[in-house]
Amino acid sequence: MTTKETQQLILDTAIELFNRYGTGRISANRIADTCHLSRGHLYYHFKKKEEIISAIYDRIAAEVKHNWGDDLKQPTVHHMLEMFDRYLALIWRYRFFYREMLTLLAMDESLKQRFSKDRHDRTMVVVLFFQALIENDVLLGPRDAKTLKNLVKASWIVSDNWINYLSVDSTARYPDCVDEGYELVIDLFRPYLSPKTLSILNRSREI
Amino acid sequence: MTTKETQQLILDTAIELFNRYGTGRISANRIADTCHLSRGHLYYHFKKKEEIISAIYDRIAAEVKHNWGDDLKQPTVHHMLEMFDRYLALIWRYRFFYREMLTLLAMDESLKQRFSKDRHDRTMVVVLFFQALIENDVLLGPRDAKTLKNLVKASWIVSDNWINYLSVDSTARYPDCVDEGYELVIDLFRPYLSPKTLSILNRSREI
Repeated sequence: MTTKETQQLILDTAIELFNRYGTGRISANRIADTCHLSRGHLYYHFKKKEEIISAIYDRIAAEVKHNWGDDLKQPTVHHMLEMFDRYLALIWRYRFFYREMLTLLAMDESLKQRFSKDRHDRTMVVVLFFQALIENDVLLGPRDAKTLKNLVKASWIVSDNWINYLSVDSTARYPDCVDEGYELVIDLFRPYLSPKTLSILNRSREI
Repeated sequence: MTTKETQQLILDTAIELFNRYGTGRISANRIADTCHLSRGHLYYHFKKKEEIISAIYDRIAAEVKHNWGDDLKQPTVHHMLEMFDRYLALIWRYRFFYREMLTLLAMDESLKQRFSKDRHDRTMVVVLFFQALIENDVLLGPRDAKTLKNLVKASWIVSDNWINYLSVDSTARYPDCVDEGYELVIDLFRPYLSPKTLSILNRSREI
């Protein structure tokens, strides 16, 4: 295996174990054993568990950033819906991170700063994307900048915490939890959907 | 001190320490020392830290339930605004619980079940309250039951996680964080506010 392939195997395995058991119950040694790697070999790539978590966050951030340009180039209803769906599915894939976020960020100041900066930058892009949606009559508002920013923040908080909210009552299941979260986020924007957007949305539900 | 006064002192002290340092860093012994009680005396009231956390949750639940009857008797704009404000201020007072919620519920199955049932019951009451607001023309909608329930859930998730969201960027400060959370929740309902409600809201801001 190349270095890149080995690191990918380690991260894929860690994500699966963290999602299932939580980071507190999974040691770096357990990850090495599950990958059938020696502990020294894992140590060569990642000195401690925090480095694995930090590398997983890099992957999350890269996936979020991957389509940024596209978001702004295509202010369409399809792209808006795809963006909600894509983000909720990402949270499902990395659900341990969103479940333990405050603890993980408190343990690693550099991770916290990257996360905070990425969230700030991404919020700005999403606000611009929604402004473009309003200009293109996909949405009828909100035209007030503060209300729009609050709505983007609220949809962010709802997305990040939806699977956590569900998991108090029962075990969240994929893809149902993503579909339910998607409906919840759409409903935040429902009063602003233009008649044309509503008709596209209703048609896409019938499929 | 009476038993009730001693227990109140223990809980008040625990809340302050948990809010400041997190439950992981605070032992039952540390709480006893801060209260100037012997460890045996604290043990007489609470056998372990989990029992203290459980008793604090009972207090949270009692505070939330305290005004339930009122909520339904007064479907007015003033009462709606007071409800948002009251709930966000409660989350600030017990912010450690909302910060560590998933971990705390995972450690105590009985607490998790009480929390889940209370949240379910309370959601039903809040939905009824909003239906009454719609009937009383405080709100113009949403008239669709599913959209209304989703909006209530979303406002719940936003309220519960607002201080957590803020704390990633900086130290959340009272009362600013409560005021900002209040604006965020109001903005979720903004498109449904009737003209009369909007004028009351604008007047209350000028004061």
